[in-house]
Parts: sequence; C-alpha cells; structure tokens
Amino acid sequence: MSDAPLPGQSRDTLDTPALVLDLDRLERNIERMKRLLSGSALAVRPHVKTHKSPEVARRQLAAGARGVCCAKLGEAEVMAAAGIDDLLVTTPIAGRAKLARLAALAKRARLSVVADDGVAIAELSAAVSAAGGSLTVVIEVNVGQDRCGVAPGPEAARLAQAVARLPGLRFGGLQGYHGRLQGIARYETRRSEVRAALDRLLDSADRVRAAGIEVPVLTGGGTGSVAMDLELRGLTELQPGSYVYMDASYGKLEWDAQGAPIPFEQSIMILGSVVSRPQPARAVLDVGWKSASSDSGPPVPVGLAGASFEFAGDEHGSLRGIEATQLRPGDLVELVPSHCDTTVNLYDRIVVCRGGEVVEVWPIAARGRSQ
Amino acid sequence: MSDAPLPGQSRDTLDTPALVLDLDRLERNIERMKRLLSGSALAVRPHVKTHKSPEVARRQLAAGARGVCCAKLGEAEVMAAAGIDDLLVTTPIAGRAKLARLAALAKRARLSVVADDGVAIAELSAAVSAAGGSLTVVIEVNVGQDRCGVAPGPEAARLAQAVARLPGLRFGGLQGYHGRLQGIARYETRRSEVRAALDRLLDSADRVRAAGIEVPVLTGGGTGSVAMDLELRGLTELQPGSYVYMDASYGKLEWDAQGAPIPFEQSIMILGSVVSRPQPARAVLDVGWKSASSDSGPPVPVGLAGASFEFAGDEHGSLRGIEATQLRPGDLVELVPSHCDTTVNLYDRIVVCRGGEVVEVWPIAARGRSQ
Repeated sequence: MSDAPLPGQSRDTLDTPALVLDLDRLERNIERMKRLLSGSALAVRPHVKTHKSPEVARRQLAAGARGVCCAKLGEAEVMAAAGIDDLLVTTPIAGRAKLARLAALAKRARLSVVADDGVAIAELSAAVSAAGGSLTVVIEVNVGQDRCGVAPGPEAARLAQAVARLPGLRFGGLQGYHGRLQGIARYETRRSEVRAALDRLLDSADRVRAAGIEVPVLTGGGTGSVAMDLELRGLTELQPGSYVYMDASYGKLEWDAQGAPIPFEQSIMILGSVVSRPQPARAVLDVGWKSASSDSGPPVPVGLAGASFEFAGDEHGSLRGIEATQLRPGDLVELVPSHCDTTVNLYDRIVVCRGGEVVEVWPIAARGRSQ
Repeated sequence: MSDAPLPGQSRDTLDTPALVLDLDRLERNIERMKRLLSGSALAVRPHVKTHKSPEVARRQLAAGARGVCCAKLGEAEVMAAAGIDDLLVTTPIAGRAKLARLAALAKRARLSVVADDGVAIAELSAAVSAAGGSLTVVIEVNVGQDRCGVAPGPEAARLAQAVARLPGLRFGGLQGYHGRLQGIARYETRRSEVRAALDRLLDSADRVRAAGIEVPVLTGGGTGSVAMDLELRGLTELQPGSYVYMDASYGKLEWDAQGAPIPFEQSIMILGSVVSRPQPARAVLDVGWKSASSDSGPPVPVGLAGASFEFAGDEHGSLRGIEATQLRPGDLVELVPSHCDTTVNLYDRIVVCRGGEVVEVWPIAARGRSQ
C-alpha cells in the first residue's frame, strides 16, 4: 500500500500526487487574520469546508475564533467528535435522516443551523424537542447569490418570529453569504457588490428588530471581503475559509484600491511527478481530475516560467510551454490548486512540512462528508 | 456520524447526497459486454478506474474478463489485496517511492505496467530485479491523444528490444489508447478516428515484429469503441471502463451508422435532496462540486421534464426549469453523473439497490488512490 510519509522525511522524496502544507505559511495566515480583526467588533468563525481538518480548526480557535462554520452536518459531526465546539451549519438541513442526525448532534455540541423555510423550521423544532435538545437557528437571507435564503426584508422577520415561538429553538440571527462576490478580482467592483449585499442583510435585520426580536448575530463574508466587511461595518461575524490555504483564484484578488496583493500566502501545493516526456514541448504529470479540482480552471505550475497545465484525463495532466526545461520522468512539479476547497476534498491526508521537511501528516478527517 | 444504509432499507429513505447503484442494470451491462465479445478474438480487461471496487471487478472476472486495468499503482494494490490477480497499470510509473511499491507488488500479483521511456524501463528492471521479482512491460504508443506514449513506428521497436534484453522484464505487447475518441458522439466521425488510431498501433506492432520480437498483446479501446474494435480487428484486448456504470456523456453516443443508442444502461445515480425552494423557478439541491464531478459538465436530472442542473458551489446545485413541479425541501432528486469515473471518486461507498431496496453497501475501496 501507499506508505504514509514519515516525520523527518524530505519533501523531495514524497510519493505523488500529494497534497502538501507549508506549516509556517499556515501559521502566518492564521496570525494575519487575527491581526486584521483585532480591535474591531467583528468576530471570526472560520469555515472548515476549506480544510476539513480538526488540526487546522484547533489552530483557528487558539487564535481567537468564536467557533467554526461547517457546510454540511457530516463536517459538524467530525468536528464535534474531535472536540471542536460551537458549530454553525451554513446550509439548510432537510430530510428525515438528517433531522435525526441533527437532533442527536445538538445534544453533544453547541450547534446552530441556517434555515430559510417555515416548514423546515417546524421540522427542526419537532426533531430537536423530541430528542430533548435545543438548537440555534439562523435565518439565511438571499443577499444576491440567488441560491438558498429568503428574500431580503419582511420574510426574514416572519421566519425569525416562527423560530422564536417554536419549542427547542433559539433565534441566532441572520446569515447573508454571497460566494461569487468573494472571487471578483477587481477591488472596486467587489466592494460595491459587497456593499449591496450587506445592505440587503441590514435591511432584513431592521425588519426583525421592528418585529421586537433581537438579532444576536449577522454572519457572512469571506476571505475576499474581509477588508470591506471591516470597513463597511454591519456584520458581527465573518466566515472566511480559504485564507488558511489559499488558491490561484483568490491569489488574483486586488486587496485594496491601490491593487495591493491579498495578504495571505499560498500554503498548500499539489506535488506531482513527471511520468512521461514524450516530446520537448510536453511533459505529462500524474495529476488529473482525480487529484486536482477543475471547477475553477486548471492548477498553476510553480517555478517553471512560461509553463501552463492542461488537464489530460482522470490521472494525467500536460505541462506546456516547457521546451527549454530538463524535466524528466520522476521529477517533481508543484502546482497551486485553482480552488482549494474542492482540491482538498480529493485527498485523505495532508502532508505538513516546514522548510522542506515533513513534520506531521494530518488526516483530512471530514473529506467526502457531503451528507 | 452519517449512518451506513442497511440492507432492506427503502431507497427513498436514503440520506443524501448518495451514490446509488442499480444492481440489475449493472449485471445486464456486464452480461451485454460478454455477449458482444463472445465468439470474437478480443479479450476484455475492464478498467477499474471507473468503479474502484473489488466487488465489481469480481463480477467482471466471473463474466470472463482476462484481468483488469488500473490507472494507478494504488488501485492495483487495492485490487491485489482483495485477491484480484492479473493487473495492468495503464499509466507509466516514475519516481523512487513508486518503483519500490511496484517491485513489492510484482512479487504478490501478476503485474504488467506500461512504459514509454528507455531510462524508465531500465529503472523498472533494476527495481524488480533487486527485489527478486518479474514484471511484464507493455510499450505505450501515442496513437493520437498526444498524452503519454512513444511516437508510432520504430521507437516502439527500440523500446521493445530494451525490455526484451533487460533482467526481470518480459515484453507484454503494445498499448494504444485514445480517450478523447471514446466520447465522440457521431458514429462516423468516431469510427474514422478509431481507424486512424488503430493504424498507428498496427504499424508500430509491425515494426516490433520486424525486429524479431513477438507481440503478445495489443491493448486499448474503450466503452465508446467496442463495436468498432470488433469490426476493424487488430486489437487483441479491450479496456472498457464506463460500460458498467455509464454517464450522461457516454449516454449521448450513436452506437452505429443508424444512430442506435449505446446498449449499456445507466446503472449509477447521484441521489440528492432539495434543501431550499426559495422561488418557484428554482430549487436548491445538496449536490455540488464535492458530490458530482464537473469536468464533463453538470449532472442531468432524471424524471423532471425540462429541468436542468447548475452547479452553485461546493455543496449546492440549482435546479432550473421546474416552475410547475411541487418539489419541497426534503424531496429526493436523481441525477445522472456527467462523468462516472470522477464522480465515483468523490464517494466512500456505493449503495447497491434492487427494485427500490438496498441490498448491499460496497466500499469504493480504491477511492482517492491516485498515487
């Protein structure tokens, strides 16, 4: 079987494809987020869907995170089993099997979940009350992404009232998340869109308050909007995920009006090997759709000027623009993932390195936990 | 934790997203491939990269398969550990860690591997000889895909001679695989491209024979070319993978000049749930990039006339064109994967059903084995 890397092993001798983490960079990214938010009224609740790793979540909590976000109940179960408490599930829960799991988890951990539907909220109440637990419910508002979420305005107030009067439920506030905004490279465009989304959320919060209900939390935002969320104010809690690992998409963002680069470092890499060099114009890598996600384009080769990567099937990728390089079968190539979340989800473990040496191997404990 | 489905459980009560297999359809697909090839000189060596499951491989072997193809050494290790023998690794092996694993596996199983490089072949010989084993080497020829493989013609003969004279190695024949051809929907276009690729392989085989070396096997082809490979002759061994499970891409193929549909049935489905129905025009499913691969486009909804699926993030998808349907949170929706291999690789297990009831749960034992 494919052997686990050992502490002390040189990074250059790793079997491939491998997902490799630079621990120094990870630590600096977590520290930078902490410094960005220090002195502000914004709490941070990092999203574990990026890393799916209790090891990373513990480091985020140690740096002051209030709790974590989970995209799915399965991620929350893994985090709770690892002792991570205060979990917000950021996607609505539906279906009998999930309601039973949710009710069970609500007895083991401090749990919040988003909802955007009156019937679903009644089902949450019934499931949690029957199990003898309690649950915080955050109403999701559609702030422009047109995915989940009630329309901004009075509908949010109606659902908040429903939560407030149903047994077993506590009203936790409002979520307004707009994923596509996070990836807008141009600062000015991103800022005006973030502003518009925030206004929709703030309007909804006003309606809830007007109905006599306190709004404990306004949660949303992400890696791409941190600076704007700080400046514009309004949110009380940020949900950034990608800042810990970063990827080629977030790497393109203008951080401010002067076009400064994003202040987080690329901490994960896909390590691949050349398996064939049939022509000077082409080297074939052992990295394909099964070891690098393609939803946001191809990964980007590092340290090979002019080189580009093209997917060439499940387990192959072609490097182009490398005529002048001496790459041979067996040589290692580093790639920056185009999208960290979906690439991480392809791996069972992440090889943690410092200065070119393996220091630990962390299981990606919630990999595949889409249920 | 997410509970494993139980035999006897109704398919309609499964937690989602789930990968579900219709066992009747799988069995019919395997039987159809057997009947297509019966009476011909073509052997079948199904590709396990599609299913990554020893359970499916055993059924293919029971239906007369000569052995199996594996895309990666890690898949071959999993198959060997499950007692599946006669394994062809269809991607070149490179790097010290892999050579050591290959040499170890060659002592436990009948193993073949493709190669397209003289230095790599010498390394295979050294690794296998040092371990006291032996290995069959198949020379990969570039029949038009421009991925791995030596140029057709004399280079194949040179490498075959190298294999023949190096200790520990046996020359196994030639591989000519052209993945992109397999997916050409139009019959006539696909057939003429398959013909051209085959000619390149046959020419290479002639060169090897002219050098005084027997060519035991000509291996290649796939689900999309089976009928042509039978008709055109030349190959001795077929490598189909997708026919067992099928997907929306292969489902579009014209099988013959009359435009008949492909004779294999869609046996796997992604089972998702509606988690939000914020507007009549849109339902949001719990299926996104982490539970349905996107490299070949979106999955296709079943039984919802006019509906289409749009990815809406890691864990969300939007159903459009459903204004008239009564879909509510908690309702199940079936999706045909756009690409079976990469979708299967996202799941740890496949839920095996007959007639709407769970009969077994199979681990996807080689999931993630990209090393």
